[in-house]
Amino acid sequence: MADTDIRPTGDRLGDRFARTRALTETLAAPLSPEDQTVQSMPDVSPTKWHRAHTTWFFETFLLEPGLHGYRTYHQGFGYLFNSYYESVGERHPRAARGNITRPGVAEVAAYRRHVDDAMTRLLGGTLEEELEALVELGIHHEQQHQELLLMDVKHVLAQNPLRPAYDPAAAGPCSVARKPGWLDHPGGLVEIGHRGPGFAFDNESPRHQVQLTPFSLADRPVTCGDWMEFIEDGGYGRPELWLSDGWALVRQEGWGAPLYWTAPDRSPAWEIFTLGGQRPVDPGEPVCHVSYHEADAYARWCGCRLPTEAEWEAVCTTTSASPSPLDLLDRSRLHPGLPLGSGPGFLGGTWEWTSSAYAPYPGFRPAPGAVGEYNGKFMVNQYVLRGGSCATPRGHVRPTYRNFFPAAARWAFSGVRLARDL
Amino acid sequence: MADTDIRPTGDRLGDRFARTRALTETLAAPLSPEDQTVQSMPDVSPTKWHRAHTTWFFETFLLEPGLHGYRTYHQGFGYLFNSYYESVGERHPRAARGNITRPGVAEVAAYRRHVDDAMTRLLGGTLEEELEALVELGIHHEQQHQELLLMDVKHVLAQNPLRPAYDPAAAGPCSVARKPGWLDHPGGLVEIGHRGPGFAFDNESPRHQVQLTPFSLADRPVTCGDWMEFIEDGGYGRPELWLSDGWALVRQEGWGAPLYWTAPDRSPAWEIFTLGGQRPVDPGEPVCHVSYHEADAYARWCGCRLPTEAEWEAVCTTTSASPSPLDLLDRSRLHPGLPLGSGPGFLGGTWEWTSSAYAPYPGFRPAPGAVGEYNGKFMVNQYVLRGGSCATPRGHVRPTYRNFFPAAARWAFSGVRLARDL
Amino acid sequence: MADTDIRPTGDRLGDRFARTRALTETLAAPLSPEDQTVQSMPDVSPTKWHRAHTTWFFETFLLEPGLHGYRTYHQGFGYLFNSYYESVGERHPRAARGNITRPGVAEVAAYRRHVDDAMTRLLGGTLEEELEALVELGIHHEQQHQELLLMDVKHVLAQNPLRPAYDPAAAGPCSVARKPGWLDHPGGLVEIGHRGPGFAFDNESPRHQVQLTPFSLADRPVTCGDWMEFIEDGGYGRPELWLSDGWALVRQEGWGAPLYWTAPDRSPAWEIFTLGGQRPVDPGEPVCHVSYHEADAYARWCGCRLPTEAEWEAVCTTTSASPSPLDLLDRSRLHPGLPLGSGPGFLGGTWEWTSSAYAPYPGFRPAPGAVGEYNGKFMVNQYVLRGGSCATPRGHVRPTYRNFFPAAARWAFSGVRLARDL
Amino acid sequence: MADTDIRPTGDRLGDRFARTRALTETLAAPLSPEDQTVQSMPDVSPTKWHRAHTTWFFETFLLEPGLHGYRTYHQGFGYLFNSYYESVGERHPRAARGNITRPGVAEVAAYRRHVDDAMTRLLGGTLEEELEALVELGIHHEQQHQELLLMDVKHVLAQNPLRPAYDPAAAGPCSVARKPGWLDHPGGLVEIGHRGPGFAFDNESPRHQVQLTPFSLADRPVTCGDWMEFIEDGGYGRPELWLSDGWALVRQEGWGAPLYWTAPDRSPAWEIFTLGGQRPVDPGEPVCHVSYHEADAYARWCGCRLPTEAEWEAVCTTTSASPSPLDLLDRSRLHPGLPLGSGPGFLGGTWEWTSSAYAPYPGFRPAPGAVGEYNGKFMVNQYVLRGGSCATPRGHVRPTYRNFFPAAARWAFSGVRLARDL
Repeated sequence: MADTDIRPTGDRLGDRFARTRALTETLAAPLSPEDQTVQSMPDVSPTKWHRAHTTWFFETFLLEPGLHGYRTYHQGFGYLFNSYYESVGERHPRAARGNITRPGVAEVAAYRRHVDDAMTRLLGGTLEEELEALVELGIHHEQQHQELLLMDVKHVLAQNPLRPAYDPAAAGPCSVARKPGWLDHPGGLVEIGHRGPGFAFDNESPRHQVQLTPFSLADRPVTCGDWMEFIEDGGYGRPELWLSDGWALVRQEGWGAPLYWTAPDRSPAWEIFTLGGQRPVDPGEPVCHVSYHEADAYARWCGCRLPTEAEWEAVCTTTSASPSPLDLLDRSRLHPGLPLGSGPGFLGGTWEWTSSAYAPYPGFRPAPGAVGEYNGKFMVNQYVLRGGSCATPRGHVRPTYRNFFPAAARWAFSGVRLARDL
Repeated sequence: MADTDIRPTGDRLGDRFARTRALTETLAAPLSPEDQTVQSMPDVSPTKWHRAHTTWFFETFLLEPGLHGYRTYHQGFGYLFNSYYESVGERHPRAARGNITRPGVAEVAAYRRHVDDAMTRLLGGTLEEELEALVELGIHHEQQHQELLLMDVKHVLAQNPLRPAYDPAAAGPCSVARKPGWLDHPGGLVEIGHRGPGFAFDNESPRHQVQLTPFSLADRPVTCGDWMEFIEDGGYGRPELWLSDGWALVRQEGWGAPLYWTAPDRSPAWEIFTLGGQRPVDPGEPVCHVSYHEADAYARWCGCRLPTEAEWEAVCTTTSASPSPLDLLDRSRLHPGLPLGSGPGFLGGTWEWTSSAYAPYPGFRPAPGAVGEYNGKFMVNQYVLRGGSCATPRGHVRPTYRNFFPAAARWAFSGVRLARDL
Repeated sequence: MADTDIRPTGDRLGDRFARTRALTETLAAPLSPEDQTVQSMPDVSPTKWHRAHTTWFFETFLLEPGLHGYRTYHQGFGYLFNSYYESVGERHPRAARGNITRPGVAEVAAYRRHVDDAMTRLLGGTLEEELEALVELGIHHEQQHQELLLMDVKHVLAQNPLRPAYDPAAAGPCSVARKPGWLDHPGGLVEIGHRGPGFAFDNESPRHQVQLTPFSLADRPVTCGDWMEFIEDGGYGRPELWLSDGWALVRQEGWGAPLYWTAPDRSPAWEIFTLGGQRPVDPGEPVCHVSYHEADAYARWCGCRLPTEAEWEAVCTTTSASPSPLDLLDRSRLHPGLPLGSGPGFLGGTWEWTSSAYAPYPGFRPAPGAVGEYNGKFMVNQYVLRGGSCATPRGHVRPTYRNFFPAAARWAFSGVRLARDL
Repeated sequence: MADTDIRPTGDRLGDRFARTRALTETLAAPLSPEDQTVQSMPDVSPTKWHRAHTTWFFETFLLEPGLHGYRTYHQGFGYLFNSYYESVGERHPRAARGNITRPGVAEVAAYRRHVDDAMTRLLGGTLEEELEALVELGIHHEQQHQELLLMDVKHVLAQNPLRPAYDPAAAGPCSVARKPGWLDHPGGLVEIGHRGPGFAFDNESPRHQVQLTPFSLADRPVTCGDWMEFIEDGGYGRPELWLSDGWALVRQEGWGAPLYWTAPDRSPAWEIFTLGGQRPVDPGEPVCHVSYHEADAYARWCGCRLPTEAEWEAVCTTTSASPSPLDLLDRSRLHPGLPLGSGPGFLGGTWEWTSSAYAPYPGFRPAPGAVGEYNGKFMVNQYVLRGGSCATPRGHVRPTYRNFFPAAARWAFSGVRLARDL
């Protein structure tokens, strides 16, 4: 993995802090003040909110307790930019983030510079281990928001009938229309979860044993071409393929294809909206922006099932092919491809839905303090996704990483890998 | 009235066109791109949408049919900036206007310049009478949107806990804490409605007779000081004062004061959010931002009633005091005052709710063509307001003007004038 | 009118009380306990609630204040059976009436007998004038609920795919497929509103003058055959025919025909659900169960308009044909017909939408006390209907009667009569 | 377990069929037609629907395919009484079951007798193994609905401010205010899931191994007295105790105590609504009618957690104390008690929330045919409960049984047993 060989010493931590902060600004650069302000649904946050919230995180958890003489940039920002930390105080309702026009992008940029300067001072000194761990957490937190920023602004731009591109220069599809094969696993006791050193979120621990029955995992994700067959076979119209809640959603929401697919009269000439703009669907690229329900129905349609997260991790960590590091600055990666040559592409094409409900590992303890609210309190009615996507920053993917979304969510870069019993 | 002495000749029409278009830009000038993009509730439209929609109106109804060789600025703008003209084509859903980030404010400004240039060419030639009437309508249409722009951006800014001002330099309250008196009317047959010359909307015609019973109208609007007495007397907690629907709204919405009033613990130290920022309520200024239901309950509380629109017009047109013209460029008028010296202030403090449901006058015929959708199709479940407000542009007030809003609406500059039977 | 020649002396008042109370029980008789319990939408009340509420009215407003030694039947019934009298105390939420299974129909019947016995004692003595007026009001109140009972249970039964009849023996359609003619009126000052003697609700007063312009009123209501032409001409699909709110409802609710009409594939073979069961639509019978919006769109489609309530009353009271009294016990009247021979059928086929918003007459004063909540507090966002329907009891129709419903309501026996300017 | 020693031979199957069918009627007997008709929320079904639906199950899956010459009782009943079997055809919307008044209770009783007679004929002959299995399934299906019937009618009656009892003669609380102890388990590989013979639902298979870490399980459920301490400690007001979704529910729904608890001013004098009527809360009885979120928050409050379903089953099957069989005809069991003397009371007080999301066991295969829709399609966004309640019929509890409800559900007889890591 990209990260495990990096020791968070004071010096290199500062470098990584600076690089991470800079990447956020790079990602926001193509976006106008108007683009950065809008919230197109309650789950989406405005770009400028992401930029301010990640800054508030460092200000609140590092600078205020840890930098002598630091003065809070603006007394009202805590209320506006606290996301969900109950123990830190009251906050602005999430669904109303898009109503806030001020501070605007220029003032948010100034806020970022102010905090970055203070953080540079803090990181220039000797850091207690506890604060060092919080800086590390803040870096990974900001990396998560980099992906959210891209997911969210994609949703915003997609509301526009003019179909504006985030980056018209982004490369086109990058597909490998390879026939799928299977990676067998004999089952038995396996170990999953984080084992140090290197950073991991609290929800990846403790490492523990899980008993598996023999199974097989597909050696590549499901492609858009595979998905078209599902559509043409009436997959979105056959209740026997769907979980009961999923079928209700299909009817209520009128789902007939992945999010961002459109076609005149449901014709085979499917088009897709990407961060690079509107273009035809490439049958060879991984399918993306499907809900858990769609992933599950697709798997049932082809006589398979979704893997559990333990199965996924067990195969991922034993497959020799080392995943390629990703780089968001390489614009060719703003839509899922199969960039890993002949490898199984576990890390970095799309997030892959597992059948595992998001739950604490045996013996799980949330981190102490406010950051203990980071993961644990969301462990209900969500499903785990594994891997990483074209929008996940370099250094933020690892085989033990547990991403999670509700079963109905579609705006993440979420795809499907099949499993079956042996 | 400001307007009735102006003959819409080609030349002077062009001047008024230019002044009106310029005023819109002046009103938008204090607002950032972020401010101009947000839609804080379905009834509100973004500032940049107002700027583009009023432009689309001239492009669609004047330039495309009337200017030889004119080419539509952007094929996608018709869909985005048509408000509600069914006969002109499909359009973007009203409640989703705030999701559109592009065109941004700069491109909207370019669109305006493009259309203004073409309009200048059109107005420079000889105009058929029918087109001249549409230019006139377009000017008055844009004036309406100037007031809507201010109402809407006030609502947007009010969502922000930081309470940003539209114009911090706007003058403070301008009140005349005068004791109220009564203007008696003997009843009998009166004539109301528009009689030319001069512009009026189709809904102000035909002029016709109405039979009135003797009544009296207050010689000034209800003030904030009056309203505080209502609050202190428990007015928002006494169902017997309210229409049934109004009482349901009080409970459901938690109404306890006019919109934009806040007070810690409902204390007497009421504050108000204005376009000039947050400040204490001035007891002497007219109360504003109350719904029809609140107006009606207040009137019942003090043993009076709301006037009908015929009563209002009958008194307004026979009262000697001539109304002062308003000027939105005079920033002191961004909040209702009583600027009319000793006069009754019928035109230009706040809009005044009448008890009249918005309905066609006897013999009403909508204007022919698409602009026939302008007024008539809203004649249900709305109530008429008369007068004009601090946000109504000069030249857009007259005694026959019929403004209208649903009974629950509060974001207009709407106040109360009492009536009683004799 | 049926009622105006009846002097409410003590003796005859008691007879009418008894007949009215008995009719309610007759109307409920075909209904099972299950039928009488269900509330199929918030506007509908269960039959047994109607039976209990009308009883509570006499207990609360007559027996408790007026009958010496009377003891309230059940302390909990006031909360359950108060409809909307805020001044009488808290009450069960309207939309939850269908959740109450006890008291059941048998106990409600016992409650009715208990109150009837006590009322007989009260009416046997000398009654103060004020109480006498309340008895009169209670009788008319119960008559209103008789019609509501039929409207409501029709809606309940219509939810059932088995299409059960309220009374399978009810006669079939009774139509007169007469060509429509016009009744002209010269306009000018007319008087409308109640002039004694005889009972009227407070909202029918004061009698007052209204100035009319010359107009004409159709001499029969619109028929189902007329309506089929509207449907076949695409009336439900042409936005230019509809008020803006109405068009939104058409799309949102999928309206394509009057309520209770069904057809496979919108074929011409329309069927209708009536209290007598499912049967083909008779083109000659009056159209019924249309909303204000549909009535308005239909009128616009044929180049006419809806009458105002003043116009309607002016013609109704000057047309020589005396309306036939209705009798709900005559089962042939459970669906609108044109039973009045060659007359215009103003009273008793369907209620007829007027274009008049429900508003107080000039000088209107609600009745004193709790019964002042009877009418006045609903005077907003409702439209007046005139006439009376097949479900209105004998003695409850008169030319000055003002019925009212929201513009979207369809479950009343509401139809259309056209008007036009001369 | 009550059931595993019973061999389903033809003869004894018939006896059990008859006893089960009779118990449903016994449970419905105290309920009036009104009680049996109402649906107090979308999750609730009317009693008469339960009686008809269970009958439809036997008619559809046994009589129509298996009894020569059988004629469907009523062609319309399939639409009305199919619950969720997509493969059997269209059906009435679940949330509208309470709108159906006919067939009434008498006709439903006749339907039951008709089907019972035919089933007796079917069971009197030689039954193919497949049909025999379907009869067995139908019996267990009806037992589930017996508990649902009681849950649902309790919810219906609880809507009534008069607080009517299902059975006023039901015994009062039956509590054992015993101090809690702990049952330790060493962890390691355990086997869970159904192992024949004896009936089990498809979701209890296949039996499989699970790896556990050492843990401890409380030897009795949490009591009402325990829960009062949680309330008094501000448990419902402390966000740090709750999952994020749970805290949102607390605020939105105003939760401050278990469902059916009421107290004037949240005083300690808590009362509870039971099937036996309203009475004081007994601190010694198990707490009941709490959601997953409340169970989880309570566990966190006392430093524990909820058990997984594997932990629960591992301890339950190895604890010596054999659970007492329950008997719904014994009215003392209509509210949870601790009737099992010194035993841990695993089976039959309340259902106990586990932390396990409802998911397929490794290798799970739904039953073939329409009954394959019975369980599998609900395996998302639900949590497993184990044990059985005071409303679970004799013969319907076993250690491998997997009940399931959404995390927000409270109307089941759901309680809490604590677990902790060792």
